[in-house]
Amino acid sequence: MKIALMMENSQAGKNATILEQLNTAVEPFDHDVFNVGMDGENDHHLTYIHLGIMASLLLNSKAVDFVVSGCGTGQGAMMSLNAHPGVVCGYCLEPSDAFLFNQINNGNAIAMAFAKGFGWAAELNARYIFEKAFSGPRGQGYPVERREPQVKNAGILHQVKAATMKDSYLDGLKAMDQELVRTAVAGSRFQQCFFGNNQNPEIEAYVRSLI
Amino acid sequence: MKIALMMENSQAGKNATILEQLNTAVEPFDHDVFNVGMDGENDHHLTYIHLGIMASLLLNSKAVDFVVSGCGTGQGAMMSLNAHPGVVCGYCLEPSDAFLFNQINNGNAIAMAFAKGFGWAAELNARYIFEKAFSGPRGQGYPVERREPQVKNAGILHQVKAATMKDSYLDGLKAMDQELVRTAVAGSRFQQCFFGNNQNPEIEAYVRSLI
Amino acid sequence: MKIALMMENSQAGKNATILEQLNTAVEPFDHDVFNVGMDGENDHHLTYIHLGIMASLLLNSKAVDFVVSGCGTGQGAMMSLNAHPGVVCGYCLEPSDAFLFNQINNGNAIAMAFAKGFGWAAELNARYIFEKAFSGPRGQGYPVERREPQVKNAGILHQVKAATMKDSYLDGLKAMDQELVRTAVAGSRFQQCFFGNNQNPEIEAYVRSLI
Amino acid sequence: MKIALMMENSQAGKNATILEQLNTAVEPFDHDVFNVGMDGENDHHLTYIHLGIMASLLLNSKAVDFVVSGCGTGQGAMMSLNAHPGVVCGYCLEPSDAFLFNQINNGNAIAMAFAKGFGWAAELNARYIFEKAFSGPRGQGYPVERREPQVKNAGILHQVKAATMKDSYLDGLKAMDQELVRTAVAGSRFQQCFFGNNQNPEIEAYVRSLI
Repeated sequence: MKIALMMENSQAGKNATILEQLNTAVEPFDHDVFNVGMDGENDHHLTYIHLGIMASLLLNSKAVDFVVSGCGTGQGAMMSLNAHPGVVCGYCLEPSDAFLFNQINNGNAIAMAFAKGFGWAAELNARYIFEKAFSGPRGQGYPVERREPQVKNAGILHQVKAATMKDSYLDGLKAMDQELVRTAVAGSRFQQCFFGNNQNPEIEAYVRSLI
Repeated sequence: MKIALMMENSQAGKNATILEQLNTAVEPFDHDVFNVGMDGENDHHLTYIHLGIMASLLLNSKAVDFVVSGCGTGQGAMMSLNAHPGVVCGYCLEPSDAFLFNQINNGNAIAMAFAKGFGWAAELNARYIFEKAFSGPRGQGYPVERREPQVKNAGILHQVKAATMKDSYLDGLKAMDQELVRTAVAGSRFQQCFFGNNQNPEIEAYVRSLI
Repeated sequence: MKIALMMENSQAGKNATILEQLNTAVEPFDHDVFNVGMDGENDHHLTYIHLGIMASLLLNSKAVDFVVSGCGTGQGAMMSLNAHPGVVCGYCLEPSDAFLFNQINNGNAIAMAFAKGFGWAAELNARYIFEKAFSGPRGQGYPVERREPQVKNAGILHQVKAATMKDSYLDGLKAMDQELVRTAVAGSRFQQCFFGNNQNPEIEAYVRSLI
Repeated sequence: MKIALMMENSQAGKNATILEQLNTAVEPFDHDVFNVGMDGENDHHLTYIHLGIMASLLLNSKAVDFVVSGCGTGQGAMMSLNAHPGVVCGYCLEPSDAFLFNQINNGNAIAMAFAKGFGWAAELNARYIFEKAFSGPRGQGYPVERREPQVKNAGILHQVKAATMKDSYLDGLKAMDQELVRTAVAGSRFQQCFFGNNQNPEIEAYVRSLI
């Protein structure tokens, strides 16, 4: 599994801590972690708006399989990621949230709170969330006897998003202020991850046109 | 403020409890509460997918100002509502979430967990969330010195959604399985709220065409 | 109601914040607040051990009616306070904890976490806890139909503590390292509260003997 | 490590669920689990008061090394256990609480909430708590640089309890209503655990005298 971690300006100072916990949690598994957002307060400036665009590009081009995002409360990141087609982003404050989201909603992204409730043990809580997010099977339902309607509804959510969103993926990105997308794709670690792993020449060409 | 409460099948049995807490919490204020989802396990069957469509219609037609939704974990409702243009839905597990969402994101909907963590005192926790969600000013920023970028980002999120979504609001609804929309608008309490308060003849005409 | 707030060295820097929230929360009521622990990192040095002794003296002499204590996680303060006769200290992480503790256990102290989970909105969470801790009736049971056994068990807990503890209150305090008690009673704000309000000449004489 | 699980009447119906999670969590380790409280709603009736006496007997006689207790909110169990000498009982609502309690307070018991917040995923949360409570080293401090004062304070807490409590352990138990102790020791699973593992002939003789 290819996992991208992306953090924005307000909590960028915590990136090293969160990255360490993510790496520790996925160590027993065959996962690759890409740290594609800000890695400190002086890094290339990103907001949760940019995180949504970055997640959208990475997931829709299949450069990564899963995105871990967040901001102060995580709500901005959560809504920003869900504003894009092909991104199904849950909100995780504690380990069981990650487990339930995997079993019930089986999405491809989570948003976390890196300031709200972030005191002693917050880095442990993050690790415990990652442990549950990236181990075991997914889409099994919870409670298990509700699996069938839960899997069905997860599928219908994709259809609903396909309906409300523009028919062509790139039309949506092109319709927004191109300065937003340009900033979103400007980071060197993002580019390394995107260009090294994307499987969609059309999306790649669009990203290249902005650099 | 006009507030719609909407609950789906998996937790419909808790509707009376949640409605009572919502009414109690908003009593000191000049708010109207509309209970537009399922009011019991034998009511007209709705999933979180339908809640998204209902919230979209009520908010975009200005029939209500705010939507309280939820499901077992609240994640399905949260993502389903955010899949629609004009809906900015936060996720609230505790009172301070509601306060922060109002101050930082200033959206028009929240999703709550009506099964996860729902044991003793859950109805109190719901009331405390409503107390913080529906009192005091909004959009003041948190911490207050971050108000300016937070208000700005909330505005950009609207632009991003406008870009990724179809240009015409009704085109999105018409592009999805019409059976979904038909079910979403079939409830008598929903219709009472929608037809009694909507301010958009075009959306109203579309809804009437489905009944 | 006379309420004492007491904080120890590891989180002393947050005293002003917590005191402000406590004062705000009790403003609508006829409560007096005494800030008897550390009021900053450079104040007279106290640990959660001292908080237990201070709470014991204030409550057993009826100088105050209720104690709000805490430390990094709140666990040390909680256990330290409960180690004394006449102190019944709950543990509160969120508003509903305070409500339930009042209704079910009806104790005279709470311990809070001032570092664990203490990030954005922690000061709000503290205020919401105080709002529920210091308003409304107590000892009503939760759920209400369980009131009778809950009230009964709260009474038996007092008997059990009376049995396990030394028969004479002051014998217990005198049996411990007197340097601990001396430090506990050395603060000027503690002394002001204790000497100004205590109703037990014997306890007062003991405290005076240590100064 | 010998671990006793003990539950009281209000949540006895959840014993099988909690026991299963505890067994699953400790499976990778060399721990023995004893289910010494109520195992269903029709079992020998126990309150949180009895749990305190049972924990006191098992820990002070070294029949077990650690006690997992709880009640509706866990507050009654927590205070009841802490009312006894030789019992150092923390309060755990989420996995990081267990980790912090081990590192900072290094006690020999925890109390959990089996009704408050007990909804979907509560059994998972219990398992995650057990995973963190019963793996890894203890008493390492948190943050680690605070280890020294934290270990020291944990030691002083023992001295304080020794001072406030009666000098002879059994005097305390004998000073309380003997019907309470009699009920506490009447369960067959408790007796099996106690008589099979206790290392204190004097305590054993006292317990035998009550049967």
